Amino acid sequence: MRGAILHAPGDVRVEDRDRPTIVEPTDAIIRLSAACVCGSDLWPYRGIETYDGPIPMGHEYVGIVEEVGDQVSAIKPGDFVVGSFFASDNTCEICRAGYQSSCIHRQGVGGAQAQYLRVPLADGTLVATPNVPSDDLIPGFLAASDVLGTGWFAAAAAEAGPGKTVAVVGDGAVGLLGVLAAKQLGAERIIAMSRHESRQNLAVEFGATDIVAERGDEGVARIKEMTNGLGAHSVIEAVGTQESMMQAIRATRPGGHVGYVGVAHDVQLPGEELFFSHVHLHGGPAPVRQYLPELIDLIWNRKINPGKVFDLELPLEQAAEGYKAMDERRAVKALLRP
Amino acid sequence: MRGAILHAPGDVRVEDRDRPTIVEPTDAIIRLSAACVCGSDLWPYRGIETYDGPIPMGHEYVGIVEEVGDQVSAIKPGDFVVGSFFASDNTCEICRAGYQSSCIHRQGVGGAQAQYLRVPLADGTLVATPNVPSDDLIPGFLAASDVLGTGWFAAAAAEAGPGKTVAVVGDGAVGLLGVLAAKQLGAERIIAMSRHESRQNLAVEFGATDIVAERGDEGVARIKEMTNGLGAHSVIEAVGTQESMMQAIRATRPGGHVGYVGVAHDVQLPGEELFFSHVHLHGGPAPVRQYLPELIDLIWNRKINPGKVFDLELPLEQAAEGYKAMDERRAVKALLRP
Repeated sequence: MRGAILHAPGDVRVEDRDRPTIVEPTDAIIRLSAACVCGSDLWPYRGIETYDGPIPMGHEYVGIVEEVGDQVSAIKPGDFVVGSFFASDNTCEICRAGYQSSCIHRQGVGGAQAQYLRVPLADGTLVATPNVPSDDLIPGFLAASDVLGTGWFAAAAAEAGPGKTVAVVGDGAVGLLGVLAAKQLGAERIIAMSRHESRQNLAVEFGATDIVAERGDEGVARIKEMTNGLGAHSVIEAVGTQESMMQAIRATRPGGHVGYVGVAHDVQLPGEELFFSHVHLHGGPAPVRQYLPELIDLIWNRKINPGKVFDLELPLEQAAEGYKAMDERRAVKALLRP
Repeated sequence: MRGAILHAPGDVRVEDRDRPTIVEPTDAIIRLSAACVCGSDLWPYRGIETYDGPIPMGHEYVGIVEEVGDQVSAIKPGDFVVGSFFASDNTCEICRAGYQSSCIHRQGVGGAQAQYLRVPLADGTLVATPNVPSDDLIPGFLAASDVLGTGWFAAAAAEAGPGKTVAVVGDGAVGLLGVLAAKQLGAERIIAMSRHESRQNLAVEFGATDIVAERGDEGVARIKEMTNGLGAHSVIEAVGTQESMMQAIRATRPGGHVGYVGVAHDVQLPGEELFFSHVHLHGGPAPVRQYLPELIDLIWNRKINPGKVFDLELPLEQAAEGYKAMDERRAVKALLRP
């Protein structure tokens, strides 16, 4: 089968790879309907995150179940399923508390930018849609697999809800879907921090009530100005740099909540400032699995359309162009059709 | 009047100071029934925290109202009142959200190791007891003014409650009263981390079910061992060093809560570790005012006895010995009688 491999920074190639097979009785093999390039894929692509040797890329996926192991009972061949980037048993104490991405048996899922994928712990990881969806719904379900689930977790961690002013740091797919999630959770005012017109427009379409183009200290000052000097109740951090984390913490009022989902790179949080900020801080790798049933329902019933974050669609063979377009910020998110 | 002044590290003297007078119409003057030495007073006493010139010490206090300004209506001369280390209006949006120690009009209260004290924003800051309490209740009310309120906030921030395993890092007065608070909040299991026998005993008396003498990585390993490898649901951090913060974060299970109230000194939290830890982090200067009505009720009705943390009682004139005993860890907390 064909699949995308990262050989070196900036060097992604689609090559022949072995088609995966059932290894454990809890595995499933799925034939991918769509895959995509994640903001987090850009860290190794840019050489910021190091790795060993050529790596199969991709961890967001939807597709049709092709084959299941003997111990899989919740899904069957022919089902259309949505998964996420960590496989989880969904039965341990940590999963039951809603933190499937820290499941005691968690396994990373990789190599999803391909034709076929092996998913471990299939019963605990994959969720089937009511039927095989029509083609136009596929981008939405694909978004649920990571960026929507992550934006949703960020909004939940930031305690977005009725009566709240929510600020969103980061205008990538996760930040934009954080806007959508905050809207769904009932937030009163949603401030998207973005200086890119097309992303601002999508933010507004997803429910942003205000746009702030300033960033860093100026961005914080603008948020305070808009909130009687207090700061936002809830701030979603969807970047993962020192600057964005401090922008998020400083834009939050005392007693408010920061939900952070940008994978932190070289971030050090100053204890004393955090102490006196009085904010709640929560985040990490999103437990997407927790939200999948609800997100699938919303997408299936066309109540939300998160698939709009995909502004570039390419055949899998052109994966390299998808990476390039996202790296150069020409595209928010690239969908790949195997 | 007489009051304690810190002249230089290790040099506390009780001297003649001007008796405070009403400055603002929202002020109250109280005649102190008791004051005490705080763990946080030890930072400047030890020269770790720097300051300018001689400073009047003390920020924990109970006493009889002597005089009030024209705009004070909630308390009157003759009332026995409990206050806290930040004066707050108790009416702004931040106060109403329960964060009085970040009140938009907050003012520090200092110089309470003395005979008289001026308290700003008296209506929002002071809470009167039902009547003037008998002498044996005074240590309890004094504890409510800071260490109990702080331990309570830590336990609440750590979401201690029914079914939860709570670990407490720090066996000073705040940590010990964090144990008491966790017990009151209904925690199932309370693990006090302490290597001092007298403090271990007090922790057990306050409700600890287990004692762990190990600290740092070994302490974390013990907590994991006791919790099926997962870590505690709730961890109270009551020290404020890099080691204690990391011990608290690492002893918490994914999805669990760290409540931190040790004033962070030279602490830098590694973003990536925090991200993958999946913990909730919340803390800061305790909004003691939020809890005072409830704490006063519990103490007045003798349902809790937080005054037990005072294991040394001295006349105000011997304040220097109180500092010395706490610095050398011969005393948990010193009460001073003016």
